[in-house]
Amino acid sequence: MQINGEMVIGQRTLRGTAGVVRAIDPSRNDTMGPDFGLATDADVDAACALAQSAFDAYRNTTPEQRAVFLETIAEGILQLGSALIERAALETGLPTARLEGERGRTVNQLRLFAKVARDGYFIDATIDSALPDRVPPRPDLRLRKIPLGPVAVFGASNFPLAFSVGGGDTASALAAGCPVIVKAHGAHLGTSELVGKVIAQAVADCKLPEGVFSMLFGEGRQIGQRLVDHPAIKAVGFTGSRQGGLALMRTVALRAEPIPVYAEMSSINPVFLLPAALSNDRAAVAQGFVDSLTLGVGQFCTNPGLVMGLQGDHFDQFVEAAAAALQGKGAGTMLTPGIHKAYVGGVEQLSGIDGVTLVAKGKPDGAGCAAQASLYVCEAATYLSTPALESEIFGPCALLVRCRDAEQMQQVAEHLEGQLTATVHALAADRAHAAALLPVLERKAGRILFNGYPTGVEVAHAMVHGGPFPATSDSRSTSVGASAIDRFLRPVCYQNVPADLLPDALADNNPLGLTRLVDGAMQLPQ
Amino acid sequence: MQINGEMVIGQRTLRGTAGVVRAIDPSRNDTMGPDFGLATDADVDAACALAQSAFDAYRNTTPEQRAVFLETIAEGILQLGSALIERAALETGLPTARLEGERGRTVNQLRLFAKVARDGYFIDATIDSALPDRVPPRPDLRLRKIPLGPVAVFGASNFPLAFSVGGGDTASALAAGCPVIVKAHGAHLGTSELVGKVIAQAVADCKLPEGVFSMLFGEGRQIGQRLVDHPAIKAVGFTGSRQGGLALMRTVALRAEPIPVYAEMSSINPVFLLPAALSNDRAAVAQGFVDSLTLGVGQFCTNPGLVMGLQGDHFDQFVEAAAAALQGKGAGTMLTPGIHKAYVGGVEQLSGIDGVTLVAKGKPDGAGCAAQASLYVCEAATYLSTPALESEIFGPCALLVRCRDAEQMQQVAEHLEGQLTATVHALAADRAHAAALLPVLERKAGRILFNGYPTGVEVAHAMVHGGPFPATSDSRSTSVGASAIDRFLRPVCYQNVPADLLPDALADNNPLGLTRLVDGAMQLPQ
Repeated sequence: MQINGEMVIGQRTLRGTAGVVRAIDPSRNDTMGPDFGLATDADVDAACALAQSAFDAYRNTTPEQRAVFLETIAEGILQLGSALIERAALETGLPTARLEGERGRTVNQLRLFAKVARDGYFIDATIDSALPDRVPPRPDLRLRKIPLGPVAVFGASNFPLAFSVGGGDTASALAAGCPVIVKAHGAHLGTSELVGKVIAQAVADCKLPEGVFSMLFGEGRQIGQRLVDHPAIKAVGFTGSRQGGLALMRTVALRAEPIPVYAEMSSINPVFLLPAALSNDRAAVAQGFVDSLTLGVGQFCTNPGLVMGLQGDHFDQFVEAAAAALQGKGAGTMLTPGIHKAYVGGVEQLSGIDGVTLVAKGKPDGAGCAAQASLYVCEAATYLSTPALESEIFGPCALLVRCRDAEQMQQVAEHLEGQLTATVHALAADRAHAAALLPVLERKAGRILFNGYPTGVEVAHAMVHGGPFPATSDSRSTSVGASAIDRFLRPVCYQNVPADLLPDALADNNPLGLTRLVDGAMQLPQ
Repeated sequence: MQINGEMVIGQRTLRGTAGVVRAIDPSRNDTMGPDFGLATDADVDAACALAQSAFDAYRNTTPEQRAVFLETIAEGILQLGSALIERAALETGLPTARLEGERGRTVNQLRLFAKVARDGYFIDATIDSALPDRVPPRPDLRLRKIPLGPVAVFGASNFPLAFSVGGGDTASALAAGCPVIVKAHGAHLGTSELVGKVIAQAVADCKLPEGVFSMLFGEGRQIGQRLVDHPAIKAVGFTGSRQGGLALMRTVALRAEPIPVYAEMSSINPVFLLPAALSNDRAAVAQGFVDSLTLGVGQFCTNPGLVMGLQGDHFDQFVEAAAAALQGKGAGTMLTPGIHKAYVGGVEQLSGIDGVTLVAKGKPDGAGCAAQASLYVCEAATYLSTPALESEIFGPCALLVRCRDAEQMQQVAEHLEGQLTATVHALAADRAHAAALLPVLERKAGRILFNGYPTGVEVAHAMVHGGPFPATSDSRSTSVGASAIDRFLRPVCYQNVPADLLPDALADNNPLGLTRLVDGAMQLPQ
């Protein structure tokens, strides 16, 4: 498939006429062809009108039809072959092996949502039978969840496949029955075009209404703002910076009709090293931590940016081991010049804070957007009294925090803002300490993990990639895993609706074979 | 139990010192004793601090403990006996029989949420087993829902028991594990004090931390705004006017940390009369409609305020029959002087709109806040071109809309704002017409009912009392029925958490006997 600088509006592929941008190769910090045409306001409106007109037909497709559609997209992405990986590598600076892994995850994610659509648990089918002899009589009541409407998805820079055009937000919204309009991320325009065209082709192959999918290019915030401001749009999925997410939330707050915004924004992913765990295995813990910190040049939402330990020899030895491990790490190319600049600025600011001391640096910066890893340490008292230390520095930089005692470590936990993850390293001897931390971490994070590292987000039914603000704008949701579909649904009750007008999900003979809550008890399909 | 003009802050009962208000008897439009002391800002802060400090302990109570707590509240409300009903009747003008019925509903609602707590479906317990041999290995992942934190509840004027201090928002939030702070409604201060003290007593009887419940009096918006602005508050439940709900949403939008606002605001609850149904039974349909319209002096969120029919003799005869039925209806006392004044103003405004014609009035206004029912008619073309006709007039007033044909009726449906309910009267011969309306109504309303009237909201598992904006601020939710608990929960994932630290809901041996999703398949307890 050729990269022509084209967007997708339903079944049309076209060069936008609002201007031209080029993709950037961050390893050279230079642009590359072709020119990509930017969307006009009219393009946004056209995509929204198509999505709105497609909604009723698309949401009334069967679960099987939606599943096949998602599987067709997965197959189409695989069939792009090495062209996709090569373009993504050029545009992001990410290694080929990582991108191949991410492609596997993207395809598995689409297939998981095909299964989620077929299983139909998300429908929450519920039936309360009529009780005509009760005083007063109870009517026949049936509930199912239906999709919200067209969803605006913002591609993320750091997962050009798994959280971009055909990524988790798109897969979960399409599985729910929502048309999707993607605002492609400027950091991987060609990759976006390739995947966008695959999805448009899958729409045609599956004989779905064309408005089910569109993808637009835009620079700055104009196109994104117009998109989320459009009355046809009923929900927004976003992964990016706190600043970007907050701007989106402000735009949506000014709409006449409020809609949900699912913005996954920032997290420093605290790691608590409890004494017995540190006593047992501090060299391995240090190595694992540094590997996690520098994975993908630290460009993960779940990158461990803050590590707490209790003062003493074992913590000092952990710091030494982490320093040694970090010094061996080479400078990796970051995704964009902007991310690289923000990282360098963030590290510089951190290093200038009173009480924060440099522990180690990775190998020096190379060409283009290559970034040097860095590790700092401070006392917990400094951490607790310095608000600036709570900000995420996106990239391979972490702060180690030396706590006086368990009580002070608990204070640090209580002091944290909302997080995507919180990690505890603990052995059996740490149980009392871990048990005290756990309720605090439950209030602070969407995922709590033991004796591991937070990078690596399994796409599964029990995954939560979410958490209290500012980790996300809506702690009730996850953007990874089967439950991500719940973001795009709302319940409707059918009271005394004649059998021949009831949706299949609620018909007496259960033609979709759903698990349903009937008169207050869960019933598996026969 | 004495009414002393006291609020409840944890286990303290006290007269607020920020001023004094009295309750109003709307049948006489005059005040009555005692004086109620208003909350200071410090009272709000004290209630919030208590709620925050109670949260971890309360959310870790067992489902059984929470169920017993809710049942204790229900029992306490019943034990107030006639004192509660008499005070509520004085303060609201509602008849004793209605209030006794509402008390039954309130108690049943508390008991339903006791069952919901025990059943534990709301926990969404999910387990994905570790796959150590997979490449890469899958960790052990377990998900449960936990409560959001302290919830601010605003009592509604029109259900002094079922949607006030011990009503649906309170019951569902307490069942979820959230402490509750109620801002009592000024329209039934003494009723609020009685129920508030019952809940505080139940907290003590069940040996729960005192911060689980507080109830504050406040005039105007100051206390409510301070409450929803407090960092301890993590969600808001509100039932009231569109103006009040929007003001609350604006206040919350300015918080540093965004939180969900569940505001149930306004709905005109359209009714579609299809030709065969009208041909068959127009007198009975007209009588049923007028009974529903005037029930409780029209002061239901689900009051049918808009009726569509196709032009012709049958519709004209329906209008005549409705007029006759309405003329027999006496003027009922409205809840407050403010509501009465707004109703009179709304009807006056409606009657002044070009193309809107009076059909009938009920019996004339009596003393105090008594209100005369009224019925108007217009052509669909007028309805479609007059935005003012979409506003709710809270009270016993409806607008009949004469549609040229089925297509124009469909246009009216498409033109509607979000609604709590939409009603269709249809027989088998109307099937094609009803099938065309249904997808539109699904997009517009939270509950769709056939051949009935929308007043009367069953408290059941399949009920939805919600809907797209402006019916509510968040169409993903319901404020009545078992699913109301979902508003106050968020998911947390536990990754490789040691067995002895896992919550009971996720333990291997399933000690709570929950239905759980295990490796992608629903498993009923053994």
